[in-house]
Amino acid sequence: MDIGFIGLGEMGAAMVANMLKAGHSVRVWNRSPDKAQPLVELGAQIVGSPAEAFTGDAVFSMLADDAALRDVISAPLLEHAPRGLIHVNMATISVALAEELATAHAGRGLNYVAAPVMGRPDVAAAAKLTIVAAGPAEAIDRVQLVFDSIGQKTWRIGSLPQQANVVKLAANFMLASAVESLGEASALLGGHGVAMQDFLDVITNSVFPGPVYQGYGKMIAEQRYEPALFKARLGLKDVRLALAAAESVSTPLPVASVVRDSLIEAVAHGDGEKDFAVLGQVASRRAGR
Amino acid sequence: MDIGFIGLGEMGAAMVANMLKAGHSVRVWNRSPDKAQPLVELGAQIVGSPAEAFTGDAVFSMLADDAALRDVISAPLLEHAPRGLIHVNMATISVALAEELATAHAGRGLNYVAAPVMGRPDVAAAAKLTIVAAGPAEAIDRVQLVFDSIGQKTWRIGSLPQQANVVKLAANFMLASAVESLGEASALLGGHGVAMQDFLDVITNSVFPGPVYQGYGKMIAEQRYEPALFKARLGLKDVRLALAAAESVSTPLPVASVVRDSLIEAVAHGDGEKDFAVLGQVASRRAGR
Amino acid sequence: MDIGFIGLGEMGAAMVANMLKAGHSVRVWNRSPDKAQPLVELGAQIVGSPAEAFTGDAVFSMLADDAALRDVISAPLLEHAPRGLIHVNMATISVALAEELATAHAGRGLNYVAAPVMGRPDVAAAAKLTIVAAGPAEAIDRVQLVFDSIGQKTWRIGSLPQQANVVKLAANFMLASAVESLGEASALLGGHGVAMQDFLDVITNSVFPGPVYQGYGKMIAEQRYEPALFKARLGLKDVRLALAAAESVSTPLPVASVVRDSLIEAVAHGDGEKDFAVLGQVASRRAGR
Amino acid sequence: MDIGFIGLGEMGAAMVANMLKAGHSVRVWNRSPDKAQPLVELGAQIVGSPAEAFTGDAVFSMLADDAALRDVISAPLLEHAPRGLIHVNMATISVALAEELATAHAGRGLNYVAAPVMGRPDVAAAAKLTIVAAGPAEAIDRVQLVFDSIGQKTWRIGSLPQQANVVKLAANFMLASAVESLGEASALLGGHGVAMQDFLDVITNSVFPGPVYQGYGKMIAEQRYEPALFKARLGLKDVRLALAAAESVSTPLPVASVVRDSLIEAVAHGDGEKDFAVLGQVASRRAGR
Repeated sequence: MDIGFIGLGEMGAAMVANMLKAGHSVRVWNRSPDKAQPLVELGAQIVGSPAEAFTGDAVFSMLADDAALRDVISAPLLEHAPRGLIHVNMATISVALAEELATAHAGRGLNYVAAPVMGRPDVAAAAKLTIVAAGPAEAIDRVQLVFDSIGQKTWRIGSLPQQANVVKLAANFMLASAVESLGEASALLGGHGVAMQDFLDVITNSVFPGPVYQGYGKMIAEQRYEPALFKARLGLKDVRLALAAAESVSTPLPVASVVRDSLIEAVAHGDGEKDFAVLGQVASRRAGR
Repeated sequence: MDIGFIGLGEMGAAMVANMLKAGHSVRVWNRSPDKAQPLVELGAQIVGSPAEAFTGDAVFSMLADDAALRDVISAPLLEHAPRGLIHVNMATISVALAEELATAHAGRGLNYVAAPVMGRPDVAAAAKLTIVAAGPAEAIDRVQLVFDSIGQKTWRIGSLPQQANVVKLAANFMLASAVESLGEASALLGGHGVAMQDFLDVITNSVFPGPVYQGYGKMIAEQRYEPALFKARLGLKDVRLALAAAESVSTPLPVASVVRDSLIEAVAHGDGEKDFAVLGQVASRRAGR
Repeated sequence: MDIGFIGLGEMGAAMVANMLKAGHSVRVWNRSPDKAQPLVELGAQIVGSPAEAFTGDAVFSMLADDAALRDVISAPLLEHAPRGLIHVNMATISVALAEELATAHAGRGLNYVAAPVMGRPDVAAAAKLTIVAAGPAEAIDRVQLVFDSIGQKTWRIGSLPQQANVVKLAANFMLASAVESLGEASALLGGHGVAMQDFLDVITNSVFPGPVYQGYGKMIAEQRYEPALFKARLGLKDVRLALAAAESVSTPLPVASVVRDSLIEAVAHGDGEKDFAVLGQVASRRAGR
Repeated sequence: MDIGFIGLGEMGAAMVANMLKAGHSVRVWNRSPDKAQPLVELGAQIVGSPAEAFTGDAVFSMLADDAALRDVISAPLLEHAPRGLIHVNMATISVALAEELATAHAGRGLNYVAAPVMGRPDVAAAAKLTIVAAGPAEAIDRVQLVFDSIGQKTWRIGSLPQQANVVKLAANFMLASAVESLGEASALLGGHGVAMQDFLDVITNSVFPGPVYQGYGKMIAEQRYEPALFKARLGLKDVRLALAAAESVSTPLPVASVVRDSLIEAVAHGDGEKDFAVLGQVASRRAGR
């Protein structure tokens, strides 16, 4: 396919590389153009503006947050895009902005698909992302081959794009909640002289298998929060987005409120750039340890 | 081995059956003697008092809670038990009582091992329990063969018996926390018209594999909380024990506090005997759904 | 003084009336002009645009929220205002917007004073408001006479305008926290058959005198939440602003998080327009009563 | 009246002194007899056992907590007390124990009145206590003159003794909640460079008059937590009792849960013996200040 791609951070660059490998033609744009260079060797074409990326069969975007997206996706940009173009937004953004973008695109005859992904840069590089897609079914059908080039599985959630964002935010909330609970458990165990790793051995070999409990649990057990796989500051951002998505449908999320407070406490102690497993340190500090 | 066994609830009866199958000789006692009858056919010997169970190589106990244990394990009982007897307590009890029992046994020349188990009655029947043991290492060595007859794996945690109880309570806290989070996520998703089962498909096939997210998640998705695998009332008891164990070492557990409040709310609405996945209903009710 | 006034809700209208009574000359503007008519009889001059209000010695604004303020206070408006003009913003707005406005005004040679008030419309009508002012001291000096015409006391907080907003938000947080606690206490007392009014008699005649515990407490005791003195929906807005102000300086406010969840629950049950003493009902509902 | 009095801590000793001044005859007993000596000079008669205090018209008790009370008020003691004796328990104890004592007394033909007091030792010394009484009305009538000698006002709550304990615990919960909120507000204000004392001036002169906001607020403003008027450790005890009283009637108290966590954090940092205004320090520490 003839694809545009906007946003070449670690995740975006890995996706583009896999799209190219699969034979797609990709025009790339990034605010800092140097990020695009390595992709040129793989066959990408650098363009000078987001508008030039907003052409062809579909354009994908992977920007950092709501603000970055608002800076790029302007009304004039949409106005000049070819009717029928599919915009696939893979970033984790607010549900409110997703709704707003869906309306803005539809009003200009464009297709808007939300397709946030689960998986970190190493997973993206391996083309093993989990893709959560929502929006017009036929639009998703048309980009499915591209999804297949970057992910191992695409889950279709619904016809409203923002529903995919809700799923992503709910998943990240679950993640944050599990890490906070691991942190609290660690403080409890430490108080009684039990090694966190012993506890992890028990639960990851029985009720809690899987990468979350093993991976973040290990960081907490070793009190080693760098290098960060998922920064506390970004975890806080996502919990905030989950709380906002919930408030918009009048839904309290008491555990998310607790995790938000704990992440703020981590940031307050200068740990915002550390892995959000640093919640284990927050819990221990409260216990005076 | 020549074993006594006290407490023939669903879990205890399943354990005894497996001990008998493995060739151990078991004297059983239960407050309501009729529970013991089916085990006689498998070879168990019914005794008329806890004291008669407190003889032989080792005695195992599996009683409902602290109160039931205090009723049975009296000072005179310990006084008359043969020196060197190993008492293996497999129930989920408070850390405070475990400490107290460890001291009381040691003072009378008895060995006290705490070995709470993870797994429900069906797992117990299949002899697939996860056993978490703590106490004097040689005492655990001596009963290891019995553990092998009822469980698939024994994890040794430390030399202080109560440390095994801390691990069990921390694991149940993690469980309760995961279910509360699933409930909250369900309310968030419902508010945006996303099917809980779709969300579960995504997370259980990626970041959250395993029985907890699948099993309890499904009950929440189907809003079906009976028959109860783990009752809300008992979940509340365990969270309370985790909070007490944490308070005894001056450790706040904010997520446990939230879960406690939610479980109290479930009980207040008459759902104490339902599965504690009913936390999903609590979260939805708060959202007016 | 020659004053402009923007925003003639219940609070604004009462303030203008008192300013006129004190002999000040007031040009008024409101989005819906009919609100201005009753003030004309008291001597006010209606103007056709915010810009016409932004002249003279000082302009006061009392708009509903951040959005309403952003709609009115545009860059061109500030550009055309006379240098040295004092803008006194009496609304409860976000700390972030207050900072932004302070910078925008200063950059154009205008004085920006934040002067949120404490007291409801009846207090405003009686010219008994408590005024919390922050900003350039000499600017506050120059409008002190106007403050004296509408309030019983002006508290000066600091030289940064947003500091007055922080004080207002912190006070409203305290208020919301007290009402939530009253609601929880009410649920506890009700569970034991104690009349809430008996409890209120005890505490308001001893440790908790004052209007908050008496007034909101009485509404909870009588389960009568209309007419609303302070709507739950607006209470939620203010708690949200307090949480945002706290997050901007990395400060967790766990009680505010709890109150936020309770207010969302009230809104979810259709009680957003009721007095925020309806928190008592939220607490009772959780207890199944 | 002919009175017995058990428990001569600071509060108890001050009460006895005022009873003696009012002309009552008082037999006193304390575990450490030296505490009783100063009262002998005022006319008290020291007795050698609780049983000797449990005679006459009425016996008052003012012991530290549930455990201290259980040690003294034994079944034999009640068995040997004269029928019709009134036992007035003024201590802050659990609702569960109050119920148990009410039943135990009634079963032996004794009257049990719960009459916890509000006010610290200086208030007790000035005979200005607020007394919250519940139990059989005629029994309270008969000791009213004694109440009048130590308090400024007796509030009658209901016919079930434990109801007075519920009121006391709810009041202390309100107190703890107000102090926690003050602490959080202080952290918020500090983050924005606003002096806590300026904030206190505003709120104590408007919405929050009274000793709680002034007194504890001042300690937080001055970050001076010693000498303790009400120790954090004891505040934690009372919040725990309030949570237990609420759980017994299936009532969640989310703010109490938060305050409990904060007080545990204070204790964890070695501040259990400081005034519970140290909650201000807990809130600031979380914010990294």
